[in-house]
Amino acid sequence: MRAIVKPTAGPGLVVRDVPEPTCGSTDVLIRVHHAGVCGTDLHIADWDEWAQGRITPPLVLGHEFAGEIVEVGESVRDEFELGQLVTAEGHIVCGHCLQCRTGNGHICARTRIIGVDRAGAFTGLIAMPATNVMRLDGIPTEIGAIMDPMGNAFHTVLTAEIPGSVVLVLGCGPIGCFAVGIARAAGAKAVVAVDVNPKRLALAAQMGATKALPPGAAVRDAAMELSDGNGADVVCEMSGAVSALHDAFALVRNGGRVQLLGIPKGEVPVDFATEIIFKGITVYGVIGRRMYETWNQMRRFLRSGIFDPTPVITHRFPLERIDDALAAIRSGDAGKVILEIGR
Amino acid sequence: MRAIVKPTAGPGLVVRDVPEPTCGSTDVLIRVHHAGVCGTDLHIADWDEWAQGRITPPLVLGHEFAGEIVEVGESVRDEFELGQLVTAEGHIVCGHCLQCRTGNGHICARTRIIGVDRAGAFTGLIAMPATNVMRLDGIPTEIGAIMDPMGNAFHTVLTAEIPGSVVLVLGCGPIGCFAVGIARAAGAKAVVAVDVNPKRLALAAQMGATKALPPGAAVRDAAMELSDGNGADVVCEMSGAVSALHDAFALVRNGGRVQLLGIPKGEVPVDFATEIIFKGITVYGVIGRRMYETWNQMRRFLRSGIFDPTPVITHRFPLERIDDALAAIRSGDAGKVILEIGR
Amino acid sequence: MRAIVKPTAGPGLVVRDVPEPTCGSTDVLIRVHHAGVCGTDLHIADWDEWAQGRITPPLVLGHEFAGEIVEVGESVRDEFELGQLVTAEGHIVCGHCLQCRTGNGHICARTRIIGVDRAGAFTGLIAMPATNVMRLDGIPTEIGAIMDPMGNAFHTVLTAEIPGSVVLVLGCGPIGCFAVGIARAAGAKAVVAVDVNPKRLALAAQMGATKALPPGAAVRDAAMELSDGNGADVVCEMSGAVSALHDAFALVRNGGRVQLLGIPKGEVPVDFATEIIFKGITVYGVIGRRMYETWNQMRRFLRSGIFDPTPVITHRFPLERIDDALAAIRSGDAGKVILEIGR
Amino acid sequence: MRAIVKPTAGPGLVVRDVPEPTCGSTDVLIRVHHAGVCGTDLHIADWDEWAQGRITPPLVLGHEFAGEIVEVGESVRDEFELGQLVTAEGHIVCGHCLQCRTGNGHICARTRIIGVDRAGAFTGLIAMPATNVMRLDGIPTEIGAIMDPMGNAFHTVLTAEIPGSVVLVLGCGPIGCFAVGIARAAGAKAVVAVDVNPKRLALAAQMGATKALPPGAAVRDAAMELSDGNGADVVCEMSGAVSALHDAFALVRNGGRVQLLGIPKGEVPVDFATEIIFKGITVYGVIGRRMYETWNQMRRFLRSGIFDPTPVITHRFPLERIDDALAAIRSGDAGKVILEIGR
Repeated sequence: MRAIVKPTAGPGLVVRDVPEPTCGSTDVLIRVHHAGVCGTDLHIADWDEWAQGRITPPLVLGHEFAGEIVEVGESVRDEFELGQLVTAEGHIVCGHCLQCRTGNGHICARTRIIGVDRAGAFTGLIAMPATNVMRLDGIPTEIGAIMDPMGNAFHTVLTAEIPGSVVLVLGCGPIGCFAVGIARAAGAKAVVAVDVNPKRLALAAQMGATKALPPGAAVRDAAMELSDGNGADVVCEMSGAVSALHDAFALVRNGGRVQLLGIPKGEVPVDFATEIIFKGITVYGVIGRRMYETWNQMRRFLRSGIFDPTPVITHRFPLERIDDALAAIRSGDAGKVILEIGR
Repeated sequence: MRAIVKPTAGPGLVVRDVPEPTCGSTDVLIRVHHAGVCGTDLHIADWDEWAQGRITPPLVLGHEFAGEIVEVGESVRDEFELGQLVTAEGHIVCGHCLQCRTGNGHICARTRIIGVDRAGAFTGLIAMPATNVMRLDGIPTEIGAIMDPMGNAFHTVLTAEIPGSVVLVLGCGPIGCFAVGIARAAGAKAVVAVDVNPKRLALAAQMGATKALPPGAAVRDAAMELSDGNGADVVCEMSGAVSALHDAFALVRNGGRVQLLGIPKGEVPVDFATEIIFKGITVYGVIGRRMYETWNQMRRFLRSGIFDPTPVITHRFPLERIDDALAAIRSGDAGKVILEIGR
Repeated sequence: MRAIVKPTAGPGLVVRDVPEPTCGSTDVLIRVHHAGVCGTDLHIADWDEWAQGRITPPLVLGHEFAGEIVEVGESVRDEFELGQLVTAEGHIVCGHCLQCRTGNGHICARTRIIGVDRAGAFTGLIAMPATNVMRLDGIPTEIGAIMDPMGNAFHTVLTAEIPGSVVLVLGCGPIGCFAVGIARAAGAKAVVAVDVNPKRLALAAQMGATKALPPGAAVRDAAMELSDGNGADVVCEMSGAVSALHDAFALVRNGGRVQLLGIPKGEVPVDFATEIIFKGITVYGVIGRRMYETWNQMRRFLRSGIFDPTPVITHRFPLERIDDALAAIRSGDAGKVILEIGR
Repeated sequence: MRAIVKPTAGPGLVVRDVPEPTCGSTDVLIRVHHAGVCGTDLHIADWDEWAQGRITPPLVLGHEFAGEIVEVGESVRDEFELGQLVTAEGHIVCGHCLQCRTGNGHICARTRIIGVDRAGAFTGLIAMPATNVMRLDGIPTEIGAIMDPMGNAFHTVLTAEIPGSVVLVLGCGPIGCFAVGIARAAGAKAVVAVDVNPKRLALAAQMGATKALPPGAAVRDAAMELSDGNGADVVCEMSGAVSALHDAFALVRNGGRVQLLGIPKGEVPVDFATEIIFKGITVYGVIGRRMYETWNQMRRFLRSGIFDPTPVITHRFPLERIDDALAAIRSGDAGKVILEIGR
């Protein structure tokens, strides 16, 4: 089967044939219909410092996908049938550590990620542990293919108290744009979306942002006006920019909540006294998706139609055009980029 | 000033002149613009058993109102100004018991209610402790006048986790209809509204119910279908009907939440094992409004426009026509009934 | 191997030989050292109405046990080794329903219980799904054998907020006595234990009850005095007695929490208005143990020594003397009754 | 009356006569029996940068105290009587902002602190708003005088989930030592206390620390061993040391909670990715005491005797010896230092 592969330790990807996987006794074998391309794939393609430390080539890339069940392992219980459309949580966790045993598998220390630590989904077939597989039940595979990053947004937004809140979303990449729509659907009083890129701001506005603004004084004014001068109840930091991190602490109200998803590079100097302690705020580090509370919430938002992520998908390519897909991400203008693989 | 008064211990109300109240040092004096009429006022008018045990005539009725500040007590700090439009929490609490000191003033054992335990708002002027007064900041006084019962609905709905949930509202009187709209605004996946009265069901549908149904098998079918067979995540029991109480326990999913606002008469036999314990559910008794978290949430929903209660107001009368107002409530077809008092 | 068996549909148990179980690919095979005898076993022995509706003879009884791993299924990951001492959650759940997927496996609708719905632990060997097996890591098997009912007590107590609270424990059977000790270890300000049986009250006092009293006015006086007249912050109803249920609602403070573990027979008439709604309380139905948060908490309390359940074990018998074990429970004077099976 | 006064803008304090305060209509006038001396008083005495920006001399110092009611304002309701022993929350808040209205007065933006922003308690009499006054109900005034800093410790510890947790306390000044004892009383599985000063470590051990260690590899070993390799469930950072802040993030387990009370000077570079985000932790900024939930909890721990802070009081001086009191604090060896003022 054709696959997008990091062939050797160095920049670049190739599309080549790889052997089909076998379906273990506790696995489900899935024919991939759609897959999502992510900034992580760009890091692997470019062979940056993080990739050099983490990736062992050759490796099939891809950790966001959806498709159709073509085989069910013999020890898998009665949940799945051939032909069902499914997606999967790409973090494969140990299942028996403290975190896994208490609904916090997203922070299992033994997590292995498909397309990063083991073969991924940018190919025709993938075998996944049945515990990781989620039925789509009517959600299209194109949407199913991006439930991994969308789940980051759900995790970020729904672990704060949203109904009636003023929410600030810093960074309007695909996950930020999802967050805008989720916050609106969950009853935010107002959502202020912030990004340096006008195309991204337009997308955030389309997803329901009350205001979509470039960083600057107008952001502060909007946050204060919409909150009667208190500041935002919830700030979702989804950019990783140092200045956004300081904005998050500056614009959250006393006693508010800052959700950190964006990954700042290196160390960021923070004045804990004035930025965190004297404000009495709560800061929460978001990684992955809560297993599987986030998935349950996400399936409900999607299946009921209260949240529609479709506008965020801006580009679609066949598998062979992975370089074009990566170029679209590199441009900074893309929302979510999809590979159309099977059917 | 003219007032609606329970003159003596017996059925009936009169409209007559009463003396104007004075404004204490920690009070705010308010000219009443609009007031809401409530089932409680009906009980007092009819002089039922509850009223006989609680009310000491002569008493000015009315616990739901909004109006304009005309005097501010000299010990009141800088929050209020003459001419501001305000409403007020009608439960006057002690302020220093365990409950009052921990944000739970709604269950202060020393609560005294205006229009029940002391002079009420169906008149031209009312003096309220400044702590109970809430600025409207753009909310019309007609809406402000019904924030007391609307607050019951906010308290009921927002103390459950609503985003993504299947919510069942049993009883579509005014508070039930508010609850339907609040649940939708707060991101419910679906809201099933139930009542015996078709007019009320039509109102519930107008407020956003996914399905509005009379009690019966179709309710179960709807709850199960919308929840993939699990049952409702949250049930708001707002009718006080015995059958609805059993429906609440039957239709909530294992591990779900039943919010009890409706007041059943007398004792109701319940099979705790199968209705509550084996299902692992949580049951919460709702009384009043959380002071003042509920008010803060309510003001945000109203001021941002994410929730519009206007359709629930079905009748408006001048003060002198209190008997017509009570008759409208008695018919069972009314939503919220408003008295237009001042200006 | 010898086993305690319900041989046919009717009263009585026999001890006889049964075939050894085999270890499935996802199972762990355990040699039973100690097992706990429970009121449920009494119901099965006596063949009461519940047993007639639930049990399909022939059946090996026993759902509380601990022992030594003698075989590990080939698909079980690296958590377990031969010779390890372990106990197990006796509720075998589906693993993929909404509840199982969100840390609420204790209310999985497809739960099957060992010794009730499938072969149990009153015998030499039992095969358990690896997911249900918990390492003892130094906890003796005699204590491990009663972690199932002790887990009910941990679930009951630790899902309320205990530090600084006045806790009322109604019913001082073994689970009630565990609850007393757990509440003290978790920082209760005071624990009032209530039972009709003086031997049980003595045991409750030994477990740390501030006061151990028979039902009556003195209980109310104690609860009120210790809480400055507010009432208990938390009531754990562990008796199933109708009068205790009413006491729970009467003695909990406004805004407090009633945890229901005891199973009342049939329907209990309750005045929802005065007993639940006007008090603004929360009622929680406790079933089983949270999987696996409760187990994690329990292992921590036991291994650190902050809670010692040993005094609650009052009787020990060999397997063949099951009738004596049941008689001890029937007497009403026993704490926890243990079968010493293997080694 | 004699008072400890910052007379002018510059280093040093004087003891001199000041006029007696009057009791406003909503105030309670208190004769001071004992007062606690705090690091803040040292900053004011030394006239450091913070003091220069905040303090307007002349000012009576002192924000921790307890004493006896000698006058009750005429608008104060029935809670207080002459002769009662009381302490008081020293943060005087506006009472009507979002934070004050939702139980979060500790982060009211209009907070004014006695002994800092207005006249304090290092003198014979102080007038306090009745809302801030707390009855001691049997707690000695010497203990009552230190409930302000003790409340910081209660706030820090009890806003985390303690029963069964491994707790790390970084910094064993008086507040850290209180935290050790509170965590033990609230059911911590183990408490590891860390400080550079052996005297403070001895005090932490006396307060119940499982291990009391200087910073270094042994701290990591202890935290990991006591938590089966997971890391601490809860870290209370009470030192303000930069290295301790990094230790907090390094030693908390994935998904754990870091409570920040200590005030680092200036900016601290933090690697948000590895220290916070990838670990999925929650960070909470602690300021003041929750009004008045913290006070309620504290009174319960103290009155029931489950927590005894007495060992933390290491020095007692008369008012006139304030310089000796400050010297004791400066030495770094003191626990809590008390002024014995009235009776």
